Amino acid sequence: MSEMFERLYATVVERRSADPETSYVARLTAKGRVKIAQKLGEEAVETVIAAVAQDKLALVGETADLLFHLSVLLADAGITPADIAAELVRREGVSGLAEKASRKR
Amino acid sequence: MSEMFERLYATVVERRSADPETSYVARLTAKGRVKIAQKLGEEAVETVIAAVAQDKLALVGETADLLFHLSVLLADAGITPADIAAELVRREGVSGLAEKASRKR
Amino acid sequence: MSEMFERLYATVVERRSADPETSYVARLTAKGRVKIAQKLGEEAVETVIAAVAQDKLALVGETADLLFHLSVLLADAGITPADIAAELVRREGVSGLAEKASRKR
Amino acid sequence: MSEMFERLYATVVERRSADPETSYVARLTAKGRVKIAQKLGEEAVETVIAAVAQDKLALVGETADLLFHLSVLLADAGITPADIAAELVRREGVSGLAEKASRKR
Repeated sequence: MSEMFERLYATVVERRSADPETSYVARLTAKGRVKIAQKLGEEAVETVIAAVAQDKLALVGETADLLFHLSVLLADAGITPADIAAELVRREGVSGLAEKASRKR
Repeated sequence: MSEMFERLYATVVERRSADPETSYVARLTAKGRVKIAQKLGEEAVETVIAAVAQDKLALVGETADLLFHLSVLLADAGITPADIAAELVRREGVSGLAEKASRKR
Repeated sequence: MSEMFERLYATVVERRSADPETSYVARLTAKGRVKIAQKLGEEAVETVIAAVAQDKLALVGETADLLFHLSVLLADAGITPADIAAELVRREGVSGLAEKASRKR
Repeated sequence: MSEMFERLYATVVERRSADPETSYVARLTAKGRVKIAQKLGEEAVETVIAAVAQDKLALVGETADLLFHLSVLLADAGITPADIAAELVRREGVSGLAEKASRKR
């Protein structure tokens, strides 16, 4: 059950070269970066709604959808989970997640 | 570098009980579920913009922000990365990620 | 050509009681507040993308979609264009649109 | 109270050339198209949240914010309320708002 995102990402990368007739990943990827980003945005809206509606089961499902489409987007941009991990570690290295606060407030 | 999301989530869970004066996670958590969801939505907008603008460096940073706020939201809702992994495996078990296609089209 | 939003809103209100078989407004309204809000969120994502992509023609179309779904949402919540106008005037009355700045910064 | 959006838009256009020190419109406009689009996206998230939370008063306020930022964006792109009205009329002319349904389903 560990390495959830890495496993999801690896599956998505594998599906990118599959037949668009049978693979949603291949089909969405063929539509291009803007369409993938649009789908990510739509899943984020659904995640926000599930969270505000306090619907825990829906939130699990929408989060899975969100991470799935995020994986498709990152794979399309040539960004790996290790790139994201490095960015997160970099922030920890500077001043922890508190860096977020100083940057955004 | 593996288990990126699990590590991020564990850090967020630890910070939830930290001093709001020094921890952004504790401060945001104190504002409640709706505010956390709002921040997630805002980070998603920034991720979409970075993707459409073809700005790879920004996309890495915005994705880190998005996953960070998603971790804060999931922790607040009592949802773990293992819950998401189980949902992803369940979908694989049924019909692979193709299930997504049949459900959404 | 004037009173663009009022005309759009009046059309939407009229269509709410139409046959769902032939009216998109009636069909969407029947799905409830959350679904209408979700559609509004999706159209906003598309508007943001059109704006960032500097696609003026698409921005006109997405703005029309956004205002259309906003009208469906407001009508469903019993909010009229006059209510929005009153809120905008109230802000002007206090300190102009600068009130926005003081409130949000 | 009529012509709500046209009045809002006219105010925004006037403020664009004001002093950024005193005008939020001038200040936001100076930050460029992408930043304006980001703000629109954020206000849409807040509108969706207010709608799902069934908070009518908040929905009036967030709608005012959304339309305000939409006006800033349209003004920046050189799009007028008349352009949006023409697009809405064009859709009516073709097949009414039902055109939306055929296009999107």
